Amino acid sequence: MLKVKNLIDPMDLKVEELEEIFNLAHQIIANPKKYSNICDGKILATLFYEPSTRTRLSFKAAMMRLGGKVLGFSEPNSSSVSKGESLGDTIKIVSAYSDIIAIRHPKEGAAKVASMYSDVPVINAGDGGHQHPTQTLTDLLTIKSLKGSLQNLTIGFCGDLMFGRTVHSLVKAMSRYKNNKFILISPKELSIPNYIKEEVLIKNNIEFEEVETLEEVIGKLDILYMTRIQKERFFNEDDYIRLRDIYILDKNKMNLAKKDMIVLHPLPRVNEISKEIDDDPRACYFKQAKYGMFVRMALIAKLLEAM
Amino acid sequence: MLKVKNLIDPMDLKVEELEEIFNLAHQIIANPKKYSNICDGKILATLFYEPSTRTRLSFKAAMMRLGGKVLGFSEPNSSSVSKGESLGDTIKIVSAYSDIIAIRHPKEGAAKVASMYSDVPVINAGDGGHQHPTQTLTDLLTIKSLKGSLQNLTIGFCGDLMFGRTVHSLVKAMSRYKNNKFILISPKELSIPNYIKEEVLIKNNIEFEEVETLEEVIGKLDILYMTRIQKERFFNEDDYIRLRDIYILDKNKMNLAKKDMIVLHPLPRVNEISKEIDDDPRACYFKQAKYGMFVRMALIAKLLEAM
Amino acid sequence: MLKVKNLIDPMDLKVEELEEIFNLAHQIIANPKKYSNICDGKILATLFYEPSTRTRLSFKAAMMRLGGKVLGFSEPNSSSVSKGESLGDTIKIVSAYSDIIAIRHPKEGAAKVASMYSDVPVINAGDGGHQHPTQTLTDLLTIKSLKGSLQNLTIGFCGDLMFGRTVHSLVKAMSRYKNNKFILISPKELSIPNYIKEEVLIKNNIEFEEVETLEEVIGKLDILYMTRIQKERFFNEDDYIRLRDIYILDKNKMNLAKKDMIVLHPLPRVNEISKEIDDDPRACYFKQAKYGMFVRMALIAKLLEAM
Repeated sequence: MLKVKNLIDPMDLKVEELEEIFNLAHQIIANPKKYSNICDGKILATLFYEPSTRTRLSFKAAMMRLGGKVLGFSEPNSSSVSKGESLGDTIKIVSAYSDIIAIRHPKEGAAKVASMYSDVPVINAGDGGHQHPTQTLTDLLTIKSLKGSLQNLTIGFCGDLMFGRTVHSLVKAMSRYKNNKFILISPKELSIPNYIKEEVLIKNNIEFEEVETLEEVIGKLDILYMTRIQKERFFNEDDYIRLRDIYILDKNKMNLAKKDMIVLHPLPRVNEISKEIDDDPRACYFKQAKYGMFVRMALIAKLLEAM
Repeated sequence: MLKVKNLIDPMDLKVEELEEIFNLAHQIIANPKKYSNICDGKILATLFYEPSTRTRLSFKAAMMRLGGKVLGFSEPNSSSVSKGESLGDTIKIVSAYSDIIAIRHPKEGAAKVASMYSDVPVINAGDGGHQHPTQTLTDLLTIKSLKGSLQNLTIGFCGDLMFGRTVHSLVKAMSRYKNNKFILISPKELSIPNYIKEEVLIKNNIEFEEVETLEEVIGKLDILYMTRIQKERFFNEDDYIRLRDIYILDKNKMNLAKKDMIVLHPLPRVNEISKEIDDDPRACYFKQAKYGMFVRMALIAKLLEAM
Repeated sequence: MLKVKNLIDPMDLKVEELEEIFNLAHQIIANPKKYSNICDGKILATLFYEPSTRTRLSFKAAMMRLGGKVLGFSEPNSSSVSKGESLGDTIKIVSAYSDIIAIRHPKEGAAKVASMYSDVPVINAGDGGHQHPTQTLTDLLTIKSLKGSLQNLTIGFCGDLMFGRTVHSLVKAMSRYKNNKFILISPKELSIPNYIKEEVLIKNNIEFEEVETLEEVIGKLDILYMTRIQKERFFNEDDYIRLRDIYILDKNKMNLAKKDMIVLHPLPRVNEISKEIDDDPRACYFKQAKYGMFVRMALIAKLLEAM
């Protein structure tokens, strides 16, 4: 049983609790039928104050595959918010209709506030640039499943390391496991924030290096975690075009990588991964999406104490 | 078994039929598991021609908690209406897909029209400023549950009594029970319409009084039914600001009230009830939302003849 | 078992496969309870890149009546498309969440593309002006059910025969059955495209005639298939108003028809069929909508190999 009632920040969960969730996820993967009715009669409310189709559908699929039902809204304009209702009031009411809530909100801290008003467990499905804990759980389960362990890994993060919240969360999460090494690959303009380097990496004596090109390090990686480079982060378009191409993952770069390296991406991708490598067995970003559904199944089951 | 096939106007139901619905609702509350599959295989269509998240989610939750499924739309722009289809045709088609329909429409009388074309039961989920019968059922079930009876009560209605359709419906509904007394608390500009005073209260010889402040009467009330005062109802902003504050329910006013008074509100509230009283055990508006789900469960089960 | 994995074009299905689907549909109609759980635990994804309420609700109802669950989106703006994700990527991800996909897209060929990326069966729910195969299945099942056969029939198509994709598909589909005769009733400006006359009708030696008024031929018809005449197809409004009225189906025209003729329409209708004939037993367009749900049930069950 988990100690937490809600999942707001990925670091809310201790390593042992994560282990419990991943074990259940693996059991579900091995025998989905056994778990297909454990949430019969339960209702998940998906309150999406900003649209996010993949996350929303992943939560819905997860609950449905456990036998549960789903209600909610996918856009703020269809909610009572337009009548001036406070988030707290909406949560109070929805927690009267449902057994568990997944909330996505453009404001940082909204999920935390929601959990304070709710009578049922609350899962943060993304609050602004802040946290997106089920993405971190997805990443961890994918790594554990495909690499067999969360230890002794060399993990490259590539692209926009400054603004990418999934990168920050995953660096923090992987820092809790033994003997991992991080290689941070980004243009200087988009390098990882200092507070992460200092408070997470240096403080915990974790090996890491920062480089500017993918080619020079790809051969050392066990995991390559790609992210989108967004045009709007740059001061001028020339910089954007020059840098964007350096980080595109294509066949040439994949030829330099280990045979058992895995490529991950939180999706959606735009053009930072060339479609020509989609059929490469090391391209695991679509598998990752499927692990996302399974880890949400395990999380919902645990929070509902259905398992 | 109910005599009506549809629920369009709250007064469609005789007192005995209401009793039947409330009894079933109480049985469901006492033993929800027993009723969690009685609508297995049944489909509720929620046709919302104007958004109303709470009402829509309440209907969805109600049907899901009975084991049924739900389809529909939450906004008119996603409907065939944009292709010029008449309401009657839409209803004909949807009643081929579903077993019961809940319709919300901005035009008065739309639900009545829908019921004329439907092959399956139709529930009015609000038609313009006209009727919203499941809100009235919610209010009645809440009062019956929390006060033990629908008789011998002193009920204060506070706020906008001129335009609030829930107030009008509840006054009519409570007038059918013995020995209730009404206290109508509102600014003169927003007092209850004359036709309700004459045709409902005076005609039936029901005791009532009209006052302008909450303080002078709150001590006498068994039930305080609060409503929103909307800025747009006033001719000038000074009046609005002056009046709004007089009617805000706060700790000071609650100190004048009986120990067992209950506060109701159809929600959403904006600022007419101060958050500082949310934890007062007499503040029952969130409980009321939950009763709303249970009374819809009972109503759906009755109309589908599942019970 | 069907040979196809997907349904993209109505002609993908051989006559024997259609027969298999229609037989299952008839069994479902005769004994819906027997089939109400055959898709338990299965998920249909409805990806609607353009709104189409009736088609979407028909698919949802079909899956729900088989015991399955449904997730998806009803408008493109709520999808990841706005973040620049390719259709292929979206399909890859959604096929990780679901067991079968119904896709509606404004671009011709989109469903075909989707089927190339999907790991699960894909049903084309309309791709631009191109194909809408489940409408054709609906039309065929309705005719077979109400006329007892798909042979030896005189079928009139009336209205806009130039742009109406449902007409083109149904002409092709009915041409595969013996001894059918087509009467094509339209203004010259909206007559059926030459390639259909040449490659389907003439090439296969099928009897047909083209006329400009409904009155002159209605008495010969076993089936009258009506379509909308859209104002925007005309060069000037005078032509539109003149022609529109000629093709309105009303009591006077129905008096000239056979006692057992059936009137079909893909819906929504606007004013091309007068409401005054809705109660005529020969008006079968609402029955047709119901057959649409049943044929989708049979198709989903077959593609999922649930039957």
